[in-house]
Amino acid sequence: MIKVGCLGPDGTFSQLALRRYVEDKPHSEVQYPSIPELMIATSNDEVDLAVVPIENSIEGGVNTTLDALALHPNLTIICEMLFIVHQNLLSNSPLNEITHIYSHPQPVGQCARYIASSLTGVPIEFTASTALAAQRAANEKGAAAIGSDTLADIYGLNIVTPAIEDNSSNTTRFIVIGKQAAIPTDCDKTSIVFGVEDKPGSLFKILSIFDIFGINMMKIESRPAKTVLGEYLFFVDIEGNMQNKDIKKALELVQYKASYYKNLGSYKKAEL
Amino acid sequence: MIKVGCLGPDGTFSQLALRRYVEDKPHSEVQYPSIPELMIATSNDEVDLAVVPIENSIEGGVNTTLDALALHPNLTIICEMLFIVHQNLLSNSPLNEITHIYSHPQPVGQCARYIASSLTGVPIEFTASTALAAQRAANEKGAAAIGSDTLADIYGLNIVTPAIEDNSSNTTRFIVIGKQAAIPTDCDKTSIVFGVEDKPGSLFKILSIFDIFGINMMKIESRPAKTVLGEYLFFVDIEGNMQNKDIKKALELVQYKASYYKNLGSYKKAEL
Repeated sequence: MIKVGCLGPDGTFSQLALRRYVEDKPHSEVQYPSIPELMIATSNDEVDLAVVPIENSIEGGVNTTLDALALHPNLTIICEMLFIVHQNLLSNSPLNEITHIYSHPQPVGQCARYIASSLTGVPIEFTASTALAAQRAANEKGAAAIGSDTLADIYGLNIVTPAIEDNSSNTTRFIVIGKQAAIPTDCDKTSIVFGVEDKPGSLFKILSIFDIFGINMMKIESRPAKTVLGEYLFFVDIEGNMQNKDIKKALELVQYKASYYKNLGSYKKAEL
Repeated sequence: MIKVGCLGPDGTFSQLALRRYVEDKPHSEVQYPSIPELMIATSNDEVDLAVVPIENSIEGGVNTTLDALALHPNLTIICEMLFIVHQNLLSNSPLNEITHIYSHPQPVGQCARYIASSLTGVPIEFTASTALAAQRAANEKGAAAIGSDTLADIYGLNIVTPAIEDNSSNTTRFIVIGKQAAIPTDCDKTSIVFGVEDKPGSLFKILSIFDIFGINMMKIESRPAKTVLGEYLFFVDIEGNMQNKDIKKALELVQYKASYYKNLGSYKKAEL
């Protein structure tokens, strides 16, 4: 039986994504309190696979996921999944009696307009997950949480206001990570991360390699190299599978020119 | 007298940076509880200038600052400042009696190693600023906060462990924003933000413009355009002042090719 990891407690978006991924395959689920702990556990073979968020259409890249991908050389992206994410105001008190809100920082950003107009001045306390926020709100008079409707069922909360996200196409991209590469399809993308030499034009020169081969760069995101300010790692997604002859050649060249390089895997592009 | 804005309450790094910037010039200081509120106030002329963090060497870009820069067309970067940031564990209880920690999420990332080794399993509650964390910790038995040594003085806390950041070169870059452009120097950089058409290769084509003019791109950072997943705004820093003939020509071309474009200002490169 396959062992799969996700963020806990019950009801996190990561758990919902994991359950959609494994469907009805027999599996045992292990919950971790944070993304770094979940990814260390996957790297150390405590679980075979894990599901983590990597990007949201409003809040952007999930830094802890990106940093951990660069840190653990044995982890590979196997699959990506896109989820339309609806956030709800959950509470056992009516809207006008809400005195404080528990929330993960991400939904606060996703629901900034609703919070500013309908919960003006109500203090927000950050929690490590939307599920933890719901767990807390369920036990305190006047408390509310922001999260999925599933959390209302699990923790016994009412949906005070549904769909409070600023943009109804609010989407989170999740990745499945593990050790074994995905089977190639004809609709793949490839993710890499690299560092560049501290010389003018060095990033542009590496990106030119993709242009030489006519490879489409779909995404570039920078993260600090965590050495000195001004040194970065670049996370780049390109179209195609790394077993493709041109892509293989291009990535060889990127690796040759980069100061740091890691292949993060080829996997099927997701659609909503 | 000039009116300057920063993050409150007393003792935030933003306030320390502001005070270094204004030095002994007469000024009145206005505090705001969050970066978006501070930047709206600057855009609406409630204050003449404001100081906000934009990047940390461990935790990366400050998303709320980047998003607000793109949002308010009348705001310009006037100056940047680099600060070596030392974080301390602040509490009135000894280390072995600490039951919970208050912290802004940023220092938690900056001190991840110390927290994992010396405060294993101690729950962390997130606050909107390091100063708020100290304010709370001062009034609760067993509580600790993570922040600057200044906070220990202001809120009456002991420094339980000094300099707990993972990397002693932990640096935060602050920017001063306002309405009037900085006076050009011969050591300037220029910041812009742009969006690209949804076509293969469109980002690379825009970056090629800098290469044509031999302009050094110092930094690129992407943020979601907040429309649909996969559309981004790119924050780019280049070397030189936008009044330089080549840079002016290059930026005209960038603006012509981009789907969205905003000039964020030319200002002197900071050094530590």
